[in-house]
Amino acid sequence: MIKKFTFGTPFPTESVVMQLPEASAFPEYLTLSKDQTTLSAALDSDAIVYGLGENVRGINKRGWKYISNCSDDPSHSENKNSLYGAHNFLMVDGDISYGLFIDFPAKVTYDIGFTDLDKMTISVEEANYALYIIEADTLPSIIREFRSLIGQSYIAPKWAFGYQQSRWGYNCEEDIRKVVKGHRDNRLPLDAVYLDIDYMERFKDFTVDEEKFPDFPDFVSDMKKENIHLVPIIDAGVKIEDGYDVYEEGRDHDYFCKDENDEDFVVGVWPGRVHLPDFLNDEARQWFGDKYKFLIDQGIDGFWNDMNEPALFYSEKHLQEVFDKLKEFQDVNLDLYQFFAFKDVVTGIDNNPVDYESFYHNVNGKKIRHDKVHNLYGYYMTRSAAEAFKRIAPDKNILMFSRSSCIGMHRYSGIWTGDNSSWWSHIELIMKMLPSLNMCGFIYTGADTGGFGDQTTEDLMMRFIQISMFTPLMRNHSALGTREQELYQFKDIDSFRNMLGLRYALIPYLYSEYIKAVRENTLMFTPMGIAYPEDPAARHIEDQLVVGESIMIAPVYKQNAVGRYVYLPEDMTLLRFRSADDVDVIPVEQGHQYVNVALNEVLVFVRKDHILPLGPVVQSTADLDYSHFTIYGQSTSPYTMYTNETNTISVTPA
Amino acid sequence: MIKKFTFGTPFPTESVVMQLPEASAFPEYLTLSKDQTTLSAALDSDAIVYGLGENVRGINKRGWKYISNCSDDPSHSENKNSLYGAHNFLMVDGDISYGLFIDFPAKVTYDIGFTDLDKMTISVEEANYALYIIEADTLPSIIREFRSLIGQSYIAPKWAFGYQQSRWGYNCEEDIRKVVKGHRDNRLPLDAVYLDIDYMERFKDFTVDEEKFPDFPDFVSDMKKENIHLVPIIDAGVKIEDGYDVYEEGRDHDYFCKDENDEDFVVGVWPGRVHLPDFLNDEARQWFGDKYKFLIDQGIDGFWNDMNEPALFYSEKHLQEVFDKLKEFQDVNLDLYQFFAFKDVVTGIDNNPVDYESFYHNVNGKKIRHDKVHNLYGYYMTRSAAEAFKRIAPDKNILMFSRSSCIGMHRYSGIWTGDNSSWWSHIELIMKMLPSLNMCGFIYTGADTGGFGDQTTEDLMMRFIQISMFTPLMRNHSALGTREQELYQFKDIDSFRNMLGLRYALIPYLYSEYIKAVRENTLMFTPMGIAYPEDPAARHIEDQLVVGESIMIAPVYKQNAVGRYVYLPEDMTLLRFRSADDVDVIPVEQGHQYVNVALNEVLVFVRKDHILPLGPVVQSTADLDYSHFTIYGQSTSPYTMYTNETNTISVTPA
Repeated sequence: MIKKFTFGTPFPTESVVMQLPEASAFPEYLTLSKDQTTLSAALDSDAIVYGLGENVRGINKRGWKYISNCSDDPSHSENKNSLYGAHNFLMVDGDISYGLFIDFPAKVTYDIGFTDLDKMTISVEEANYALYIIEADTLPSIIREFRSLIGQSYIAPKWAFGYQQSRWGYNCEEDIRKVVKGHRDNRLPLDAVYLDIDYMERFKDFTVDEEKFPDFPDFVSDMKKENIHLVPIIDAGVKIEDGYDVYEEGRDHDYFCKDENDEDFVVGVWPGRVHLPDFLNDEARQWFGDKYKFLIDQGIDGFWNDMNEPALFYSEKHLQEVFDKLKEFQDVNLDLYQFFAFKDVVTGIDNNPVDYESFYHNVNGKKIRHDKVHNLYGYYMTRSAAEAFKRIAPDKNILMFSRSSCIGMHRYSGIWTGDNSSWWSHIELIMKMLPSLNMCGFIYTGADTGGFGDQTTEDLMMRFIQISMFTPLMRNHSALGTREQELYQFKDIDSFRNMLGLRYALIPYLYSEYIKAVRENTLMFTPMGIAYPEDPAARHIEDQLVVGESIMIAPVYKQNAVGRYVYLPEDMTLLRFRSADDVDVIPVEQGHQYVNVALNEVLVFVRKDHILPLGPVVQSTADLDYSHFTIYGQSTSPYTMYTNETNTISVTPA
Repeated sequence: MIKKFTFGTPFPTESVVMQLPEASAFPEYLTLSKDQTTLSAALDSDAIVYGLGENVRGINKRGWKYISNCSDDPSHSENKNSLYGAHNFLMVDGDISYGLFIDFPAKVTYDIGFTDLDKMTISVEEANYALYIIEADTLPSIIREFRSLIGQSYIAPKWAFGYQQSRWGYNCEEDIRKVVKGHRDNRLPLDAVYLDIDYMERFKDFTVDEEKFPDFPDFVSDMKKENIHLVPIIDAGVKIEDGYDVYEEGRDHDYFCKDENDEDFVVGVWPGRVHLPDFLNDEARQWFGDKYKFLIDQGIDGFWNDMNEPALFYSEKHLQEVFDKLKEFQDVNLDLYQFFAFKDVVTGIDNNPVDYESFYHNVNGKKIRHDKVHNLYGYYMTRSAAEAFKRIAPDKNILMFSRSSCIGMHRYSGIWTGDNSSWWSHIELIMKMLPSLNMCGFIYTGADTGGFGDQTTEDLMMRFIQISMFTPLMRNHSALGTREQELYQFKDIDSFRNMLGLRYALIPYLYSEYIKAVRENTLMFTPMGIAYPEDPAARHIEDQLVVGESIMIAPVYKQNAVGRYVYLPEDMTLLRFRSADDVDVIPVEQGHQYVNVALNEVLVFVRKDHILPLGPVVQSTADLDYSHFTIYGQSTSPYTMYTNETNTISVTPA
């Protein structure tokens, strides 16, 4: 049961799809402050708080402060309060259990046992929001009700379950052909290569650099013949450059965000000075979306939207102030206070809060200051594209995912988890984010495999692959200046090939479970405490996940580990895979187990009374074969497998 | 057996205390490059590489690149290559086992399976170094031989095993009295309070701000009466200020580092413009050391040396270049490349490599560029103090520890592990550093409990206390601007009191095991793979440690964890302590175990045939009582307990 409470005059975020009547009785377990901006609740000592989507820390969010404030912060360390998304759904699993969604487009702060271990305090920046309280008998029911409220999640094309390769630094046709060849020559399956910012002409959206790509449509078509999809990046900012059509159209039609004087607001991003399209303006949104046609017409069928928090290197106005301010520090004895102040002037340039308070949207003729609706920007940019796709290519399923997001956007696209790093702790982090994201409606998702920033190592990449192989989005992505991390750059290519082969053999199962999660409003990645609610030993496990209906995974996320502990809430079949074809099948009993896991091995546990059907190993999703499966595990009932968004086949146990 | 190989003309670092003849046969398992700067070795697949002291990552250093280059970097994330110390000892435990020490005062790079998982490559910046290879039957023997080579480790006074409270921000007498009162009122035992930079008059070494401390000697004496030691910080840089005696003396006698024109080199640190004492100049070192007398004469008996990497906010010369450079970016369209270049100009100001190449030491009349001897600076600053203590107060044992360090300095002082953060991963990190530091001779050591940077939480503090309670240095320290984290600031003061009480009850054992580690050249914190070499299941455990001879610890380092897995290589007695007096005594069998651990509980495992003697709970080390012990565990032989540096008593099993 969902109870809706409206405070003040909420901005119409379109995050939810249901019209609900106002509830009358406010729940006793929540306290609303007089000014209606603060909600608080006691947390009993064993209560778990689930949710909040893309964030640092554990599956259980207790013990930290989180702020919904879409932020481009590349250092995902445990002291951060905000990442790229704003996902205002959480679930308390305690003596009293309930779900809670705050439909509000600006800052919301969640003090979940940060100030006081046993108290949760939620502060909304303004008393203009809708609060939804979801009560149900079980956590999966709460999730199901919430997900119905926000509408069905985006469905990605099946090829987007293939292995994908990306790197900031692929510069031209030759670079990309080399990457494809590197995979094909080594029989490393591959479905897509990404075009990061360098494909554009001086970082201008909806351009392709003709020197680097002399005949882009031909190149796209060549790649398609090799079963490779090219996926270009689209940035939020539009370069200010006379003669550049996107800039001139936007300027002429007032499609850009304005400053306080109604001039087009100027900020700096990749191309230097840009304007920000006003995606909250219906006309502007339609206009920008239609621009994707430029690339779709050349054969492109997938995109990633980036820098749409929006990330701001600087605002023109603030930059001028910075240069003025810097002069004050010259010829002064810079002591501790002044030196830090001096550094702060420069390190605080990008994503400066003042800049977000300095520009405006035109929402149905009303001028709205950006910070009041900040968390909608990436959502509405992505919606702009997704709505356009229906006009431009109604019969195609175009891949779309975004860096910034907000609940509501889940209906239009997936997300990746942003600019992570080649850190072992980021293998652990994605494992914790997956169920939290799923709850919030984001099912097509994954982390930059191997890590985007910093230097990877072969063992880190192997262990990262061994978690990413279960996520819908499996993309190897890395930053300019880091070690090259295409899998053929490493020594043990055989093992990487085996892992990718296993991924492709798993796709029929994973895709099917993905479709079920979307259609049935369930989790594709379920925390142990939700999958086994009756088992107290399962309740607090944070490093095992149930994936779909049939399997449990227990990834290795520690460097130099030769094994790990696993808890089995029931008897299971352990599959110790070295490849899809080289597997030890070991019955394992309920209870705590220590299991050896060599670097080239991945563990899959088939749950009691479930089966895992494994398809044949192929080099591309174009070659997926549903005619025969290898079946692991036992069950009395057949497995229902979605082969596309709507059709199922029945796979019979061995 | 130690083999010494000398290449070129090594700088006399005085890291070792033994004169050894040159060895003839170079070991077969090591390959020396033609230019003698690079050593390489194959690593068999199960080999563990121990050592390298203060560093990120695991007890097993495989899979990363480490650079010995003393650095003030406050973000101890896993992508870092250098921290504050340079500890050039490692041990390979594989088919062939050996220890290796590189006696060299500048950069040494260790690629331990970073580039190639199965290869170790060590690059020394110049072919002027001594290489010591240690071969022995067992790892403890290798450690013993190495530690004999470098000389006996520093012994701290026993009061330095008491609980200590610090914070950057304690400003005056009243602040400190409040802290002491906060502990005494709550019966939270305490032995010391630290004076961070604010006690000085405008950050000038060897001054006390008279406004903040109107009668410092009286205050010190007052505190002593309450069994509180005050421990002031000493920074490396000396403020440039006419009339300031330390500055004028140093200037007049040429005791400061020089630039290329033989002018005193100017850098910026806390006070703004400072000179750097030339600790490598014997006269300057003696002069600076004698300055500690100013504080010792006022009753001070403990110091911490800081900023002695040396940390440089800027050099005067470079800062001028920065301001010139910044002008170039004004009125330009700052695109990605230019914007990052602009930011780099400022973010790269501090600890800039060019600055370290811009000043010089006077070593026996020879002008030596700083970067050639960089890693000795903190060592020689601390040595300057320690040597002076023998002149100033020959009968006192004065506490001394340093942030920067190098092997050799271990004879003169302890270290703390620098400016860590309130991160759960930093609880894990200290556990991994402890044995590595011990191998390198640093036994009096510990991490900033609760974390220096970032915001702590009560649960993090509790778990941090539960590891720090076993380390010689147990100091709660935090940075300006972070949440106040004195234990009385939290809710469950009772549990903190219980944990501190247990610490004090453990001090007789811990101090005794500390003295043994120093005298017998053993580890106080032993990795499981070294403690139980015959047990393959113990070999790769990185989150349990043997502490001294009698106990094993298994700290909880995950937020919201309600227990953890523990491996017991032998039957043990589990002590589940809620306080020194409230403990469950549980016999536990050899093997893998899952053990519940509530937030207010700490686990101690007493090893087979060993006993743990626990003293009475006291409020200060001044009240330690050796007359009766509570004995846990069984043994046929009595426990030998050091009650001071040289004397032992025999504690009989129950």
